[in-house]
Amino acid sequence: MPDRPRDLDVLRAAIDDVDRRLLDLLSERRDLVAEVARWKTAHGAPVYVPDREAALLSARRDEAAAAGVSPDLVEDLLRRIMRESYRAEGDHGYRCVLDDPGAVVIIGGGGAMGGLLGGLFARSGYEVRVLESGDWDRAADILADAALVLVSVPIAATVDVIEKLRGLVPPGAVLADVTSRKDAPLAAMLAAHPGPVVGLHPMCGPTVPTLAKQVVVRCVGRDHDDCAWVLDQLKLWGASVVDADARAHDRAMALVQALRHFATFVYGVHLQEEDADLAAMLDLSSPIYRLELAMTGRLFAQDPDLYADIVFDSPEGLELAERFGERFTRSVDLYRRGDRDEFRRQFLAVRAWFGPLADVFLTESSALLAQADDRLDRSSG
Amino acid sequence: MPDRPRDLDVLRAAIDDVDRRLLDLLSERRDLVAEVARWKTAHGAPVYVPDREAALLSARRDEAAAAGVSPDLVEDLLRRIMRESYRAEGDHGYRCVLDDPGAVVIIGGGGAMGGLLGGLFARSGYEVRVLESGDWDRAADILADAALVLVSVPIAATVDVIEKLRGLVPPGAVLADVTSRKDAPLAAMLAAHPGPVVGLHPMCGPTVPTLAKQVVVRCVGRDHDDCAWVLDQLKLWGASVVDADARAHDRAMALVQALRHFATFVYGVHLQEEDADLAAMLDLSSPIYRLELAMTGRLFAQDPDLYADIVFDSPEGLELAERFGERFTRSVDLYRRGDRDEFRRQFLAVRAWFGPLADVFLTESSALLAQADDRLDRSSG
Repeated sequence: MPDRPRDLDVLRAAIDDVDRRLLDLLSERRDLVAEVARWKTAHGAPVYVPDREAALLSARRDEAAAAGVSPDLVEDLLRRIMRESYRAEGDHGYRCVLDDPGAVVIIGGGGAMGGLLGGLFARSGYEVRVLESGDWDRAADILADAALVLVSVPIAATVDVIEKLRGLVPPGAVLADVTSRKDAPLAAMLAAHPGPVVGLHPMCGPTVPTLAKQVVVRCVGRDHDDCAWVLDQLKLWGASVVDADARAHDRAMALVQALRHFATFVYGVHLQEEDADLAAMLDLSSPIYRLELAMTGRLFAQDPDLYADIVFDSPEGLELAERFGERFTRSVDLYRRGDRDEFRRQFLAVRAWFGPLADVFLTESSALLAQADDRLDRSSG
Repeated sequence: MPDRPRDLDVLRAAIDDVDRRLLDLLSERRDLVAEVARWKTAHGAPVYVPDREAALLSARRDEAAAAGVSPDLVEDLLRRIMRESYRAEGDHGYRCVLDDPGAVVIIGGGGAMGGLLGGLFARSGYEVRVLESGDWDRAADILADAALVLVSVPIAATVDVIEKLRGLVPPGAVLADVTSRKDAPLAAMLAAHPGPVVGLHPMCGPTVPTLAKQVVVRCVGRDHDDCAWVLDQLKLWGASVVDADARAHDRAMALVQALRHFATFVYGVHLQEEDADLAAMLDLSSPIYRLELAMTGRLFAQDPDLYADIVFDSPEGLELAERFGERFTRSVDLYRRGDRDEFRRQFLAVRAWFGPLADVFLTESSALLAQADDRLDRSSG
């Protein structure tokens, strides 16, 4: 510290200098990551290595604590930097897990998810062919000697498209789909193709830069071992593969997808019919309400047919929506009666049901809301 | 680049070295921020200066682009680092906007929000006194010569507590409240105190580290100019003050608070009664569903009485819940009929109603979901 206090402008210039040196470090780190990526491509190592990430974070947290810097700050910064690294590692291509790659045919490869997967296969050295709805007269040619046939079409069309593949998939080829429902497509694939079959569901939207850290659900179909290379390739891209029973998967999706999207749809209709003053709501909103508004608004910025598929192709979703509707009506009665005691009783019962996860969720969402805070630009009133 | 490729261990050691130098920079920046904080305390400058923040971010983004580093990466990192700075600036105390500070009496100062505000006033040089429910026999002593009397008690008790203050607030003192409803408390304050009155609503929970970047809603009561110092003190802590009409505020809060919390309560009851398999849901969840589950779970980790107050003290909230319930029932009919065309029509009508904000919300929530992704630790399957 200098003897007499420095002026604000001098201090700000010093801070700007630190921030510029931060930029230099990022630049240096990016070059090192590019070298790592080349090494990984040459040696076929996966992009995302949870143990390396955990060890790196833990060591830097300890050093931060020793230096009097917030360990949470350092961890947040490193996680954000590593996101960029995972993305960058993919820019340099991926190793192909097959010695002799062969062709990957993506049915619906012109769609968003098909395009994402096609790009990843292409950057891994596979010959990627696309079969779109106008291409069925050339299907035999396109599918000839394919190593993998991947169905990536809208949910409503999936089973029909799979049935059209009957007799066209080469005997040793893997037939797979990436639909967000698994039971019916898996049954259709097993009926249409006597060879290796696997149902996949990448738990991410098609706008993610890569599959690094994304979960892909696998529902085993037939000839498990012959499908293994497809899963190995996904893991090499950084995905985590989670096994699930197809029916259990569909039940869980009815709750986390169909009902949630349907409820969000109704909330959007509600806001519109109330003609809520969105500008005023945003002015008055703390991050949590702004986040909830944003999660509603984002649905309506997307494709209505995608959401119609997710909602209407889920019979379990309808049953859940009916039961949720009944519970909502029953709870409105409680609200009308002003029955605080019953509200409190039910509140505590739900807390007990959540168990230790309630606190986990509070901590987790608080960290995210703090990040939402960071992003806000407030003009002083 | 070296002539022959370096080994992975060597590259990782080089990355660790870069990350350690990042830590050194954070340490250096922290010391500079501490100097800035001392300068600001001495000169009474506000903690959060939107123009300085915007200029800093814009300059570093441009430099990042020139250096081939992602500008979004640099902005995300700097925003996270600045959050720490805002917090740290408060550690060094704040300037008091009054030449002769006087006493601040916080009614309910033992509560979480009262404690947060009391701490901020204390660190700004005010004498902070707390009046709790057991202290009313000593109220005249506690309130004597107060400059500000701040009511921070549960919503349900606010009006009663204000009425008990009649004749006890010194004539020139500011009477203010921080309840999440504004119309009734403001009317009660105007009736109880003939001097300066202002209604405030900090749009954040009591767990925020400081008020930097938080919105505080102001509803003008009486003697606007005599209340100005309170608002100046809030701004000095970094808060943004937004003016609102008390009734318009309460209507907006019914929508963003009462109805949303009530709907979340019902969704929690729904999950419990369905006995949903939370572990399976988490395994299968993409960040968006995990976030939605977390936003539900966080409610039940908190105080049931707080939420009972927010819900049951909002008659507008009940009317909104009734109308939302009707819309939900109507939409379930649409679901049952499988009427995709009508779903699509309503979907597009809501999109049109959101206008350009739908895309804004999509971008904003995607950025946040990417941050949620960063935080996930996936063990490879």
